[in-house]
Amino acid sequence: MSKKAVLLLSGGLDSTTTLAIAKAQGFEVYALSFAYGQKHSFELSAANKIAQNMGVAQHRTISIDLGGFGGSALTQENMSVPKDRSENQISHGIPITYVPARNTIFLSFALAWAEVLGAYDIFIGVNALDYSGYPDCRPEFIKSFEQTANLATAYGVDGKQHITIHTPLIALSKAEIIRTGLALGIDYSQTTSCYDPDEAGKPCGHCDSCQLRLKGFRENNLQDPVIYR
Amino acid sequence: MSKKAVLLLSGGLDSTTTLAIAKAQGFEVYALSFAYGQKHSFELSAANKIAQNMGVAQHRTISIDLGGFGGSALTQENMSVPKDRSENQISHGIPITYVPARNTIFLSFALAWAEVLGAYDIFIGVNALDYSGYPDCRPEFIKSFEQTANLATAYGVDGKQHITIHTPLIALSKAEIIRTGLALGIDYSQTTSCYDPDEAGKPCGHCDSCQLRLKGFRENNLQDPVIYR
Repeated sequence: MSKKAVLLLSGGLDSTTTLAIAKAQGFEVYALSFAYGQKHSFELSAANKIAQNMGVAQHRTISIDLGGFGGSALTQENMSVPKDRSENQISHGIPITYVPARNTIFLSFALAWAEVLGAYDIFIGVNALDYSGYPDCRPEFIKSFEQTANLATAYGVDGKQHITIHTPLIALSKAEIIRTGLALGIDYSQTTSCYDPDEAGKPCGHCDSCQLRLKGFRENNLQDPVIYR
Repeated sequence: MSKKAVLLLSGGLDSTTTLAIAKAQGFEVYALSFAYGQKHSFELSAANKIAQNMGVAQHRTISIDLGGFGGSALTQENMSVPKDRSENQISHGIPITYVPARNTIFLSFALAWAEVLGAYDIFIGVNALDYSGYPDCRPEFIKSFEQTANLATAYGVDGKQHITIHTPLIALSKAEIIRTGLALGIDYSQTTSCYDPDEAGKPCGHCDSCQLRLKGFRENNLQDPVIYR
């Protein structure tokens, strides 16, 4: 019998690679996506397609109202996504595309589902190397959340089992992530990474996320199969 | 200028007392409630009334889809709320009225709002004395969440400010909580604690939450101003 794992699936390159890794490790994957007030919904349709094509046990999309809080260029109508990495700054070195407490909220829902499923494993495709400098992608945050998760739930009371937060990409470069994914057979043309796609869903090629992705393919001497506008 | 604090407000006795304490400490309170698939909505209307009457700066209710996960008698249609404390048990000593990871999720949203508001203080009315044995009400959980919160956000990167999770009730008995609230002028007839009220909103008097509340009033030689069915 395979072990159950809950996996956060955004439809991007990183979470899709994480899904392939979890499956390669023998997990039965319960994929979780969020409609959190993103300005565009292409990542949700990508997540749906990927979940279907890569064979997850179940895929749920939860609607949450992060947009109501504001505070991020990804959810707030009157803030625009920076066109270049150098523009993407607010104070303290955190970019305006940062969504407050997003990974804490996402992991909390993953934890709730894991507890109901009786799963002991949660996968998240955070990366602390080729990333945008978000505080909730750092290894020390993940480690601390794992500790909190074990205290928050029946696992902590029982003491016999332990929730593990898996971050297989955390120390990989974007180029290494892409190499890993290709070796596992991922079709990256299905994934979407852009913060600011056009109306047809075509990525901009300029935002932070596009630039990290393009750099990853370039360093492998490969062409990104996605068509940019 | 008063300091901003985000406060989790359920409309029950504990969170209402916590609100009175936060205000007495000089905080400008941003109250946060959740429609999380509770079977009844009396606590949300109580929260609305309390927020208005006690003068909060803002009150938001966020809809989240915890019911979809199941796993609790408070959200799942085919599980019923136990009629007596002794019935309210599953394995590991955690009652079936426990909602998986609920406080982790609620605190995560409070954290997101605090970060957007620029607040450094979050209040939650958890209690580890006269409580139902939920893992996410224990002091060690709160302490761990506070640590995670600081690593999750811009606060952790900046390093100059620090998020504090305030739990003024954590070591109080229900009787002490009621005494504190009465001294601060709370009208407890507005609060609702029952897990299983009737259609008119009248509490049952038998569930775990009602019994803890009734015991608190009794120990003060007072009558609960709420009318039971």
